[in-house]
Amino acid sequence: MNNRKEFIVALVREAQAMILAKIDANYNVDIKGGNQSDLVTEVDVSVEEFLVGRIQAAYPNDGFITEENTVPIEDKEYVWIIDPIDGTMNFVYMLRDFAISVALYHNKVGQIGVICDVVNDEMIVGVLNEGVTLNDKPVKNVQPVTLREAIVDVSLRTIVGLEKKGIADLTKMSSSILSHRNMGSAALRLAHIGLGRIHMYISDTLCIWDFAAGLVILNELGAYHNFLEDEIVFDAKRTDLLASNNKTILDELKENFYI
Amino acid sequence: MNNRKEFIVALVREAQAMILAKIDANYNVDIKGGNQSDLVTEVDVSVEEFLVGRIQAAYPNDGFITEENTVPIEDKEYVWIIDPIDGTMNFVYMLRDFAISVALYHNKVGQIGVICDVVNDEMIVGVLNEGVTLNDKPVKNVQPVTLREAIVDVSLRTIVGLEKKGIADLTKMSSSILSHRNMGSAALRLAHIGLGRIHMYISDTLCIWDFAAGLVILNELGAYHNFLEDEIVFDAKRTDLLASNNKTILDELKENFYI
Repeated sequence: MNNRKEFIVALVREAQAMILAKIDANYNVDIKGGNQSDLVTEVDVSVEEFLVGRIQAAYPNDGFITEENTVPIEDKEYVWIIDPIDGTMNFVYMLRDFAISVALYHNKVGQIGVICDVVNDEMIVGVLNEGVTLNDKPVKNVQPVTLREAIVDVSLRTIVGLEKKGIADLTKMSSSILSHRNMGSAALRLAHIGLGRIHMYISDTLCIWDFAAGLVILNELGAYHNFLEDEIVFDAKRTDLLASNNKTILDELKENFYI
Repeated sequence: MNNRKEFIVALVREAQAMILAKIDANYNVDIKGGNQSDLVTEVDVSVEEFLVGRIQAAYPNDGFITEENTVPIEDKEYVWIIDPIDGTMNFVYMLRDFAISVALYHNKVGQIGVICDVVNDEMIVGVLNEGVTLNDKPVKNVQPVTLREAIVDVSLRTIVGLEKKGIADLTKMSSSILSHRNMGSAALRLAHIGLGRIHMYISDTLCIWDFAAGLVILNELGAYHNFLEDEIVFDAKRTDLLASNNKTILDELKENFYI
């Protein structure tokens, strides 16, 4: 696994440089599937093609699940799950707070998770049973917090979505948590839970490429996550994800704010 | 005014270096006024003392309104309004997304606004009738957007607060805007409206040091802001602030989501 790890970390560093070179350039922005808030740029597509091409050259028998769909989904022993830019809206408007997310799964078990905060130059790498590094320095396990001590990242869209589905009324949690944030990048926020910077992330509209790398990192650092549906779906379907510093605060949240 | 501008920009650069040197150090964190989410660190206080001391030495007749209250509020012809770290919780937990905010007002009219994104190394400087620069490069006026095209930054606490006060139900705006964010720094978000990165910022718990510099910048770039109370209060009282890319989208918001 170490060969593949070194390979992918070096490759993601190259992709980071590609994106930084294009961040201020003119590029086309498209809207996906009629959803005005689901953007894709030429940069997303070219970075994904770069990553896929180089992985295919090195590991021709591996399969892929990718956000921009530049290769068909194939169920192989090793599957690379790629989001070239997680947080494309932040890339387009904010020029920051987006990440490259690449994971390697082996028979549906996460082996490697790489999340690169492109602008802030932070490379978070998790390897199954080998821990997590941030820019090559080891990261310690998360320190458990209570819900009252938790910074929770959730979008207004998810809050409204969970209420409409009759699952939760999260507006009520406002006075029961330390603080609320919404950064707009699932991959970055999962990494941030691992790094102890926030403590919970909730979304009802994620695809596997948004969280595949994050889960490897969270598993290694003793954090917790679950899905409203029981298991990870290895395709392009959207799902709900709750990830948190520890299981107790998720139970606390459910007990108090689930409908 | 240019002497004071060059003086304060150089001084804020020094304060930025002070904060960067301390970002990974151990420092005490206190809670202000029993409010668990209102943090202050030794770094906030020492940076404010540094700024105030150097301004007093250079301009002994000027007054101050500061967040950490290291000098009494004094109503002088020139008043410096200082937040040494806007977004202290982000500083403590996230190690990013906080800003130094310094404004100079002359007889209650904003003259200079300096917002320094410490970690991202962006210095935004506005001067009355002289425009705005980002790292010394001129910034263009904001391009008007519609509400449907707007990225809106508002915290869950403000959404709940405005609903409790019978002012607005902003959960309903979710499907009428481009996207929602909550970064946790008023000063940075006002600067970001000026830079076209987001389009609206709403908070019901701001003090003048959170927005004094931002207003100078927004005024210069043709953006819009207002207060639920009619005029800026030059003291430590909390107030509501809505700032936006243009007045039309604020009217649109009020028409559709105000109670």
